[in-house]
Amino acid sequence: MFKERLAIRRGAWTKPTCGLAPSYIQANLVIVPYMNAYDFLLFCMRNPKSCPVIEVTDQGSYTPEVFAPDADLRTDVPKYHIYRYGEWTDEKIDIKEEWRNDFVSFLIGCSLTFENALMSQGIPMRHIENEQNVSMYQTNIPCKGAGKFHGNLVVSMRPIRVDRVADAIRITANYPSMHGSPIQVGYPERLGIKNIKSPDYGDPVEIKEDEIPVFWACGVTPQFVAQQSKIEMMITHAPGHMFITNRLDSEIEDY
Amino acid sequence: MFKERLAIRRGAWTKPTCGLAPSYIQANLVIVPYMNAYDFLLFCMRNPKSCPVIEVTDQGSYTPEVFAPDADLRTDVPKYHIYRYGEWTDEKIDIKEEWRNDFVSFLIGCSLTFENALMSQGIPMRHIENEQNVSMYQTNIPCKGAGKFHGNLVVSMRPIRVDRVADAIRITANYPSMHGSPIQVGYPERLGIKNIKSPDYGDPVEIKEDEIPVFWACGVTPQFVAQQSKIEMMITHAPGHMFITNRLDSEIEDY
Repeated sequence: MFKERLAIRRGAWTKPTCGLAPSYIQANLVIVPYMNAYDFLLFCMRNPKSCPVIEVTDQGSYTPEVFAPDADLRTDVPKYHIYRYGEWTDEKIDIKEEWRNDFVSFLIGCSLTFENALMSQGIPMRHIENEQNVSMYQTNIPCKGAGKFHGNLVVSMRPIRVDRVADAIRITANYPSMHGSPIQVGYPERLGIKNIKSPDYGDPVEIKEDEIPVFWACGVTPQFVAQQSKIEMMITHAPGHMFITNRLDSEIEDY
Repeated sequence: MFKERLAIRRGAWTKPTCGLAPSYIQANLVIVPYMNAYDFLLFCMRNPKSCPVIEVTDQGSYTPEVFAPDADLRTDVPKYHIYRYGEWTDEKIDIKEEWRNDFVSFLIGCSLTFENALMSQGIPMRHIENEQNVSMYQTNIPCKGAGKFHGNLVVSMRPIRVDRVADAIRITANYPSMHGSPIQVGYPERLGIKNIKSPDYGDPVEIKEDEIPVFWACGVTPQFVAQQSKIEMMITHAPGHMFITNRLDSEIEDY
């Protein structure tokens, strides 16, 4: 197993995973009871841009057989958030005590995965340079509902230099299972974002004069929606504190 | 509504839909009781190449809100197959009498959709020229299981002239939600197909001397697997007798 996951498992790394283990595919984690799993999977299927499901474990299993058969989803995320009836009740660095045999775990593609591709083509990621978490915002764009699950899209924002915006769109469009191309370029107010300097999740990131804010659908969407559904129990990664899989970015095309 | 669907609804068209309403996206239909819907959706999610789900109706609804809000899934397929406990019991041209409030309908992408693109780029489809159904075969390739649902991949075969095989692969790769690129080229025996002249579904299609048989994952897979699972009730389209949606091939990229 690679050293970054071991550090996370031991509790030695509890920070965001932006820039950690570059080239490995990172994933959002949402764990719900089996009785809510169908509606949640259907919600994801109906909103593939924000909720690109890459793996669903069998009921009660904490092993992602496809993306990381040697991992343990109870320990291998740097920080977990626990929600009961929609209320955030705990933040933990493992969930061994909370684990139940009726839990189903969803791994959902994460835009941190394509940041490596952007950087390798000369498009810098300021939040990584500054060792920050990416900026994330709730929007006014409704998702398609499924059963109990309804709510608005959450987006991540990266400031991109004007002359590289087209490249950033082209490059990320190659990662459809990691949110793909942006959903909007340049107009936060039309997404219902009142103050770009005050993200709802993550850290504020400076936008320089020759840069445009570019917005991608974000994997926090499903956990935001699941939280609003007030289901009895839900466990997620803390925003930005992702599950790092065994697969490489370069394999994503095969998926 | 376009005339082809009206003809199907009235029972005036009960033949395969290959080549019918060209440019419209065609879909496989699988209807299962709600109690089997989660496992079936999970099976599809785990086998995206053969089971690219494009829409799931709400429980009890026969309206595909996204792909054809004016359609009625009880009448708008030329021919239905009804299975009880895995046994094929009936063939019907509508399922109004069989409809139940716990039914969930799955629309699954279909390779008939990309045939239009192939033909428009000068790659002929012999089964369409001959007014036949496409040839389909069971293979020895296991799908990833989910709950009750286990089984092998079913493929469709089209003979392609040697010098156009690369083009056919390139073109169909642009339709990932319609089975995308082929799974194999040229070696039916390695897929466990004993006699290429005797397909398990559809019609036998001649392979000429300068042609290679090319195999695509087929949307009959999920219904074959659902049949093997012996669930209490399942209704599908008859192979090749697809549901024609309101959406155009050219829109598929947007999905």
